[in-house]
Amino acid sequence: MRQSQLFTKTRREAPKDEVAENAKLLIRAGFISKELAGVYTFLPLGLIVLEKIKNIIREEMNAVGGLEVQMTTLQNPELYEKTNRWDDEVVDNWFKTELKSGGKLGLGLTHEEAITAMLVGHVSSYKDLPMSVYQIQKKFRNEIRAKSGIMRGREFTMKDLYSFHANEEDLNDYYDKVKGAYERVFERVGLGELTYFTFASGGIFSKYSHEFQTLSEAGEDTIYVNEEKKFAINKEVLDEEILAEFGIGMDDLVEKKAIETGNIFKLGTRYTEPLGLKFIDENGETKPAIGASYGLGVDRLMGTIAEVMSDDRGLVWPRNIAPFTVHLVALGTEGGEAYTEAEDLYRVFSELGIEVLFDDRNLGAGEKFADADLLGMPYRVIVSDKTLASGGFELKERQSGEVRMVNLEELIEIVK
Amino acid sequence: MRQSQLFTKTRREAPKDEVAENAKLLIRAGFISKELAGVYTFLPLGLIVLEKIKNIIREEMNAVGGLEVQMTTLQNPELYEKTNRWDDEVVDNWFKTELKSGGKLGLGLTHEEAITAMLVGHVSSYKDLPMSVYQIQKKFRNEIRAKSGIMRGREFTMKDLYSFHANEEDLNDYYDKVKGAYERVFERVGLGELTYFTFASGGIFSKYSHEFQTLSEAGEDTIYVNEEKKFAINKEVLDEEILAEFGIGMDDLVEKKAIETGNIFKLGTRYTEPLGLKFIDENGETKPAIGASYGLGVDRLMGTIAEVMSDDRGLVWPRNIAPFTVHLVALGTEGGEAYTEAEDLYRVFSELGIEVLFDDRNLGAGEKFADADLLGMPYRVIVSDKTLASGGFELKERQSGEVRMVNLEELIEIVK
Repeated sequence: MRQSQLFTKTRREAPKDEVAENAKLLIRAGFISKELAGVYTFLPLGLIVLEKIKNIIREEMNAVGGLEVQMTTLQNPELYEKTNRWDDEVVDNWFKTELKSGGKLGLGLTHEEAITAMLVGHVSSYKDLPMSVYQIQKKFRNEIRAKSGIMRGREFTMKDLYSFHANEEDLNDYYDKVKGAYERVFERVGLGELTYFTFASGGIFSKYSHEFQTLSEAGEDTIYVNEEKKFAINKEVLDEEILAEFGIGMDDLVEKKAIETGNIFKLGTRYTEPLGLKFIDENGETKPAIGASYGLGVDRLMGTIAEVMSDDRGLVWPRNIAPFTVHLVALGTEGGEAYTEAEDLYRVFSELGIEVLFDDRNLGAGEKFADADLLGMPYRVIVSDKTLASGGFELKERQSGEVRMVNLEELIEIVK
Repeated sequence: MRQSQLFTKTRREAPKDEVAENAKLLIRAGFISKELAGVYTFLPLGLIVLEKIKNIIREEMNAVGGLEVQMTTLQNPELYEKTNRWDDEVVDNWFKTELKSGGKLGLGLTHEEAITAMLVGHVSSYKDLPMSVYQIQKKFRNEIRAKSGIMRGREFTMKDLYSFHANEEDLNDYYDKVKGAYERVFERVGLGELTYFTFASGGIFSKYSHEFQTLSEAGEDTIYVNEEKKFAINKEVLDEEILAEFGIGMDDLVEKKAIETGNIFKLGTRYTEPLGLKFIDENGETKPAIGASYGLGVDRLMGTIAEVMSDDRGLVWPRNIAPFTVHLVALGTEGGEAYTEAEDLYRVFSELGIEVLFDDRNLGAGEKFADADLLGMPYRVIVSDKTLASGGFELKERQSGEVRMVNLEELIEIVK
């Protein structure tokens, strides 16, 4: 894409009321725009990142047999009354609205109830189970404060998968499969090394729930990391009992701040019982299905990456989710030799299917370099009279800062 | 995909409270599920259709230079107060909600205000124009009645594009380009012949707005079609003046019922003036940009197709947007020769990238045929002992009902 056609402009300063580092950077770089506290529009570059993350998640959920659906934002109170989650005294972050024709509605803050009720017409026998259904969609939470940028918005995009099983063994097997899928997602978006499978408080059905916690000083959670076994314990469940259970002492753990980027938990019959998702088992007995729920914040992942990978010059995107692989920067006089060469290179890249943002704007080198650093594509390629005189192009790796001269063949080998 | 793994079951009857033919069929076929009147979940097959329609629209919007963004559902009343569209007396179908931290919010029913305000920081000079920005996203309208299925929901998916220009000539040029893009969308989704470019009531800035009206007895609009010139006039603007303008008489027009599937209109400075989207022109003068707005209902398109293409046996999907191209039906005993052959064919299709739904369920022929007709894939292929004995497969075209025997080579040629 030609940068001259990208309407978004970079900014020197973020809005004064914005405190989160991720939002400050993403707003300055023109990836997002602030509508209200905790409510952000995704501009073209930001939307590309969001869609790339969604597609990675989608591929991994499909790989474990998940079928994608799209539930609704408007939610029927009747369902939540059956599970005792409608009352504001019980769930304190509903957005509620009213129908002109009468009656209240909620804005989806989670979809356990809706998905369970929807499936009632589609399950009758144990042969219909297991079942794994997910969606990638907006959720709405009426947070009193919203100061974490896109890491915890009032309106945000989440992948939520729900699985239903005939027995606990089957649930446990599938739960482990999804855990594996989550690990692949974190790996692929570039957060594999920073993310820990974390034991957190459970519920009625199981002793622990499990979180995926990504290390960051901006995190709201405190976790205790065991580097050797690569897992962590959330502060909320850290006691003598859990230490004994894992056969470790406090000396084996390091306290860290972290962002809860994903969480998975076993629900048992918490929703299937009150909402009537039942099946007839092999012995002719009618039972409620056993469920689990698997959440992953899509824009929260993006915000976390902006938070933990950036440096003082701007964003640094991992290659798999960068809006473009290459930021091609033409220097010199518009229409001059370097621009013509850059145009050629842009065409070559496009023909090879290499994703490239071409800075064809009539601006000085300093401004172009500052923008390239702020936008954070993995590779910056400069075409100028100077680089052409030395027979090639200047390639800079955004993350390492490493700069070198390359010819066309070498360049394509690296970025293709 | 294997049908045994698709959790949705077909139903003989639609819910009693459902009156719209599109929703009845889509619910019976397991493409959608009803949450509330006018509020539908998209199940796996329905979501595939929806995504295919979105992608066609996306390609055509990109082809006319549109840049995709994602605005928010939660809307700031301040913007709508500036354009006098917040008050329920003025706009009567808002869904409104309240922040826990105080203050009202709206649920996006349109995004002229939000997009105009968002662009203020990105436009300063005539060199920044024209600008064309779109999104494909949910909208919410608090309809008193919702009886049209997914053709007019309370929560629905819409593509809305907005363009901004420095002068009227540029606006008019671009407006015609988008008209062309719309015609290609209707062509590609299979509604080209049934859809008429229709003159409807305009506003302050231009005499007429333009609708894309698709002929259907289920339509809420009455239009007057001129077959020869392939355009129509909405009843609301039909008078002596418009007839004179087009040089036609009432004899040249035929009255039809139609569904408004798209609409495009010139807004002038209706939103840019109150919201301050201004630019400095070539003479140094500050002016508000001139805008236009282009809407297209995504699920409305899908509902219209379900409505106008179906027959008494079920849905009939045009090939470009069908969930799968082929419905492969194995008959006979599970594990028998026909099943084994069908498994082979399923593998061949999958390797060739042919989209196939494989009915591998252990059910009788009658039930499988009824489901295939109801689900409406363009081609049904039967593999049975009988077809194998005669050396091939039975191919049925869903739309024409034409049935013939084909060998593997012929089959692949047709469906690939």
